[in-house]
Amino acid sequence: MVVPYKIATIGSHSALQILKGAKEEGFTTIAICLKGREKPYKLFKVADKIITIKDYNGFYDIQEQLIREKAIIIPHASFITYLGADKVEKFKVPYFGNKKILEWESDRSKERIWLTKAGLKLPKIFRKPEDIDRPVIVKFHGAGGGKGYFLAKNIKDFKRKIKMHPDKEYVIQEYILGVHMYAHYFNSPLTGETEIMGFDKRYESNVDSLGRISARDQIALPKENVDPSYVIVGNIPIVVRESLLSRYIEMGENVIKESKRISPPGLFGPFCLETVITPDEEIYCFEISARIVAGTNPYIHGSPYTWLRYNEPMSTGRRIAREIKLAIQQNKLNKVLG
Amino acid sequence: MVVPYKIATIGSHSALQILKGAKEEGFTTIAICLKGREKPYKLFKVADKIITIKDYNGFYDIQEQLIREKAIIIPHASFITYLGADKVEKFKVPYFGNKKILEWESDRSKERIWLTKAGLKLPKIFRKPEDIDRPVIVKFHGAGGGKGYFLAKNIKDFKRKIKMHPDKEYVIQEYILGVHMYAHYFNSPLTGETEIMGFDKRYESNVDSLGRISARDQIALPKENVDPSYVIVGNIPIVVRESLLSRYIEMGENVIKESKRISPPGLFGPFCLETVITPDEEIYCFEISARIVAGTNPYIHGSPYTWLRYNEPMSTGRRIAREIKLAIQQNKLNKVLG
Amino acid sequence: MVVPYKIATIGSHSALQILKGAKEEGFTTIAICLKGREKPYKLFKVADKIITIKDYNGFYDIQEQLIREKAIIIPHASFITYLGADKVEKFKVPYFGNKKILEWESDRSKERIWLTKAGLKLPKIFRKPEDIDRPVIVKFHGAGGGKGYFLAKNIKDFKRKIKMHPDKEYVIQEYILGVHMYAHYFNSPLTGETEIMGFDKRYESNVDSLGRISARDQIALPKENVDPSYVIVGNIPIVVRESLLSRYIEMGENVIKESKRISPPGLFGPFCLETVITPDEEIYCFEISARIVAGTNPYIHGSPYTWLRYNEPMSTGRRIAREIKLAIQQNKLNKVLG
Repeated sequence: MVVPYKIATIGSHSALQILKGAKEEGFTTIAICLKGREKPYKLFKVADKIITIKDYNGFYDIQEQLIREKAIIIPHASFITYLGADKVEKFKVPYFGNKKILEWESDRSKERIWLTKAGLKLPKIFRKPEDIDRPVIVKFHGAGGGKGYFLAKNIKDFKRKIKMHPDKEYVIQEYILGVHMYAHYFNSPLTGETEIMGFDKRYESNVDSLGRISARDQIALPKENVDPSYVIVGNIPIVVRESLLSRYIEMGENVIKESKRISPPGLFGPFCLETVITPDEEIYCFEISARIVAGTNPYIHGSPYTWLRYNEPMSTGRRIAREIKLAIQQNKLNKVLG
Repeated sequence: MVVPYKIATIGSHSALQILKGAKEEGFTTIAICLKGREKPYKLFKVADKIITIKDYNGFYDIQEQLIREKAIIIPHASFITYLGADKVEKFKVPYFGNKKILEWESDRSKERIWLTKAGLKLPKIFRKPEDIDRPVIVKFHGAGGGKGYFLAKNIKDFKRKIKMHPDKEYVIQEYILGVHMYAHYFNSPLTGETEIMGFDKRYESNVDSLGRISARDQIALPKENVDPSYVIVGNIPIVVRESLLSRYIEMGENVIKESKRISPPGLFGPFCLETVITPDEEIYCFEISARIVAGTNPYIHGSPYTWLRYNEPMSTGRRIAREIKLAIQQNKLNKVLG
Repeated sequence: MVVPYKIATIGSHSALQILKGAKEEGFTTIAICLKGREKPYKLFKVADKIITIKDYNGFYDIQEQLIREKAIIIPHASFITYLGADKVEKFKVPYFGNKKILEWESDRSKERIWLTKAGLKLPKIFRKPEDIDRPVIVKFHGAGGGKGYFLAKNIKDFKRKIKMHPDKEYVIQEYILGVHMYAHYFNSPLTGETEIMGFDKRYESNVDSLGRISARDQIALPKENVDPSYVIVGNIPIVVRESLLSRYIEMGENVIKESKRISPPGLFGPFCLETVITPDEEIYCFEISARIVAGTNPYIHGSPYTWLRYNEPMSTGRRIAREIKLAIQQNKLNKVLG
């Protein structure tokens, strides 16, 4: 079936998966690329058309063209970052997802309210240094992608270390020692069901190499040579212990339920809960991404979880296109555009 | 082909894979779930029927029903744990595997005899603290799933640390510094062949995050905040260096050969050798699981190894169902039930 | 289609993948195995014929037989190591790849010239200890596979540590703290295109377990018990952040372009760039392998990247066979044999 709409996205992040999935569902595809970034989308033959823009402001200039082409935009993290969360609402091209949920996700206080009301366990936040009563991790806002984050064992340690970061905005978070588990979901606005799309763990530079340096060497080397950074450079596939799965399913369902209260019609489409599992099997959620995340990229040919349910390769990108196609067929396109 | 038997298992551990595989081979499937744990088996649509029980004692009450339904039980680690290894033998529902091998696996001394006679290299066990002559790892029996394990560099260190664990049963094992490699096999009672089903490494909380904390921070933080635990929360797919593969195949074959001597007709079906590979390329085996393990869960759509041999997705769960189906077709069902 | 040529390789390294891929493309396959190493090639049914040799000198004795059988040899790292890079050139059996590029790859100085001219960023090499002005890693030549490598924080530290390795040849390399990313490519001599085949990270003993020992324990244990080694025992699948992909594509293309200048007709077929990504998103290349590497073994049923481009499972092994088949069909076999 050839679908009379086109799927478009910005050439970055998870665009290969989104465009490939759209083609598998019969859509014509458009990659909107920064000049010089077109190559992957040509090489992998996933884009029927590539629109090159000089910078991300150029994105506004092609709105009319996209509307004329009957394009539906699939947002991803780079899309939101480049466009600016505040400007997404005004963007006129049909958009997959609920735009109004974005403010609940991008504002850390609102995000906490949402997740807490959904019954999720969150790491404690210390509003002022004086409140610190256990080891904490200090994270900086905005760009930099995880550089400079530091651990402090108590308030004294915090005060000493924060001096090296003057004028930076930060958040002081309870340090939870456990392993990361990124859970990927898809909520269907057509069926109301929340599916599990897979799990991954991130591959971060340099912190995922740090353990390869012996403790003796780490201590011998100058501190600045072995300070951890948390810059994401890749993703590793993983499966979760099956007895934890019903808890993850419930967490996903509760997040959706609460989203309907705070921002009707609620979150739909793909989303990700970023969690840490402790040795006591507590699952802490430290963030939600209310859209497709790059942690689904290992599963372009399906994940162990999507292969359970589908008898064909079902990436998150393809699942999005499938939902749009079904909506078109059922005359419910308005249910998937926000 | 619709098979006149049903495949049943307890809803946990690797049940998704077992049930999906059974359906692919044409079986009707039954998931036996604790109340509240049904969700994954509904969501992934792998169970034709879900039987809910209040607690694991409820399992005995449904024996007659399962027999009436012509169900064959596929055991996994949670099944054995919940039912109790001693009670499995008395369980009347047809059961895939050799029940008599269970005592050789669950009794650590018998397990050592089995593996040693099969020619595998095992870490040394120190029967009394006085024998400790090298670094050791001290492991506790029973539940707790790897919490509290500790390293001791010598007898003095051991004596100091064991004091914090009064009244616990433990085993003192030579500490082998190498990387873990979990090897998954399937021995066919019909063909006698031992196949390689894949490899994985476990993802354990919190020990697999420990290296992400710099040595300086680990030492600065209170010890109890950075003590390692080994609670399995997931599995990561992996391939083994090809030149080690013939050794792994031989290890698997030898384990099967020896199992036929100690407990005829021997081990059959899936099993796992839990190994560590040292920098000298010695392969130490520290445990055998005589049934399907969760480390095969990444391979619901086949592993790199099963794709070599089969031209269709072959999980370990499906491989079990395939064997049962072939046994039925060849009128040899007695060869696969134990 | 049955192809009137055979694909042959030495039974080790990535032979399973090469032979399986060849069969998928319609070739008859030959595994040349050391006595005792035949098992994997039988078990996985990828070899139509197994030729057993006593030792690698036996390889010369079967040259005539291979030529008679119309065999084309696919080289891999074990093949080059066992045969000797200098003897490969004289080997008379048709060979996939450009033999003349081997000297540029095996000679570390030539390799640096090649990669530097291709515009890649390389870690600095210190020709004499006196030049050391930052933390370095010291690597030993030849066999041993990564055992004994050590870090030194300055010249004094280097001088102290090198004493424990008398009479060894070594290289002193700038220590780059980042995470490893192994990028797999395929350059088609028929189309001129450089494809991305996937990414992996190595699994090395014991260094990938080191972080699982707490810093306190590492320091308590005798140094020789916790010294890192870098012996490859497996590979883990990974995907790279999509925004880094165009840089990896360019790096691959530039390496090919430069190879055509230094050694016409240049490198073709599979190759691998071994890189480290720093927190500043610099990509350092520390080595090139001008042939198939074992890091493609996780992708016997295709990688996330080959599934983007191909609608069938495309391993690197199969891609090689596909290229040879196309060359035969187009009467251009000379373009792929070197």
